[in-house]
Amino acid sequence: MSDFSLQNPVFATYVVAACLMILKAVAMSWLTVVRMMGANGGFRNPEDMKKTPLNPNPNANQTAPNESVERIRRIHLNDLENIPFFLVAGLLYVTTQPDLVLAQWLFYGYVASRALHFLAYITAQIHEIRATCWTVGSLILIYMTGATLVKALGY
Amino acid sequence: MSDFSLQNPVFATYVVAACLMILKAVAMSWLTVVRMMGANGGFRNPEDMKKTPLNPNPNANQTAPNESVERIRRIHLNDLENIPFFLVAGLLYVTTQPDLVLAQWLFYGYVASRALHFLAYITAQIHEIRATCWTVGSLILIYMTGATLVKALGY
Amino acid sequence: MSDFSLQNPVFATYVVAACLMILKAVAMSWLTVVRMMGANGGFRNPEDMKKTPLNPNPNANQTAPNESVERIRRIHLNDLENIPFFLVAGLLYVTTQPDLVLAQWLFYGYVASRALHFLAYITAQIHEIRATCWTVGSLILIYMTGATLVKALGY
Repeated sequence: MSDFSLQNPVFATYVVAACLMILKAVAMSWLTVVRMMGANGGFRNPEDMKKTPLNPNPNANQTAPNESVERIRRIHLNDLENIPFFLVAGLLYVTTQPDLVLAQWLFYGYVASRALHFLAYITAQIHEIRATCWTVGSLILIYMTGATLVKALGY
Repeated sequence: MSDFSLQNPVFATYVVAACLMILKAVAMSWLTVVRMMGANGGFRNPEDMKKTPLNPNPNANQTAPNESVERIRRIHLNDLENIPFFLVAGLLYVTTQPDLVLAQWLFYGYVASRALHFLAYITAQIHEIRATCWTVGSLILIYMTGATLVKALGY
Repeated sequence: MSDFSLQNPVFATYVVAACLMILKAVAMSWLTVVRMMGANGGFRNPEDMKKTPLNPNPNANQTAPNESVERIRRIHLNDLENIPFFLVAGLLYVTTQPDLVLAQWLFYGYVASRALHFLAYITAQIHEIRATCWTVGSLILIYMTGATLVKALGY
């Protein structure tokens, strides 16, 4: 049996965590849209100030930075800096055939750390809280990648 | 047989779509270079204003934002927010052993949505058109991820 | 045997290269933190100017752009534009069952090109040097993706 089969509980655990993280990142795109609509601004393109059915009263301020939108963009960028690497690192970690319980802690711990990071960021908690959440996830990512590297070098 | 074999038609379909999307994203890097050369500007680094064989007449305006270059960078960022997640979501979706015809619609539909998004963006169409192309792709991504999550949770 | 097994030397080679690239990208996050601490600035969030144990003397300049921090962010963004696509392209390339020696040149060549790109960028070498390093990696990525696409279309 291939390691990459849903019948492999470690892989199935990874898939659950990976899907949650993908949905989380995609949700940032939609949240940006929601906030741009709420602020009627935060747009980035000159053509977004054209008069259209969804923008009947355009004005020049609509492309000025809007903090409520920019905050989501910063969270989103942080996702881009982290989640794609987790997605691949986690997949490769599965091929090291780790203990299921350890894998569950790592995969779900990562998901939890990103969820808490999001909550800390969107509510503008002080840097220390946000950084702690990020650090937990980053250390999990580094551990999984390091363990996979060591195993692969052994072959 | 592993799901991840080119002999599996669903996987082969995914690989075609994934390769097209990777080439699309990489093309944005090259298009940025082309536009920077065309504008002789849009650079981002102080050292890019040094006199070199490729930049014989440097001037301070070369690091000012250039809209023709910035447009490609915005398209590129949109790719980074979407394509890496499609690449992993599509791969994991293959392990749910979906119907081939459905998978073809989803994978090629995603590719088509991103191609149309690019065309709408680079020609500065109104927001509604660009957003519609993006939304189709995003919904395909969410569907694939959700279907994979449900399947993985069932194991 | 699945292609995606560490017993497959091509896959093991890919995993080594992929893990090195993931660690490289994650290191940019940490290097950003190190430089922000060194500069006591370069922050991006309003809440980062609150008085906290790690920021006992906040001031408004702390959220102004800081070139030593921005340089790492530019390197990091360049990673985000390249490495996630290498990670997936390399994985899919493994399923084409390439010659091991060729695969080693491509995978390790990519890693070397990114390491040299980083060195050129962080030491602010002229554009020509930085661009050459980037180009080598990008061409490897395009070659692997193109070869995989051709193979997948043949099925």
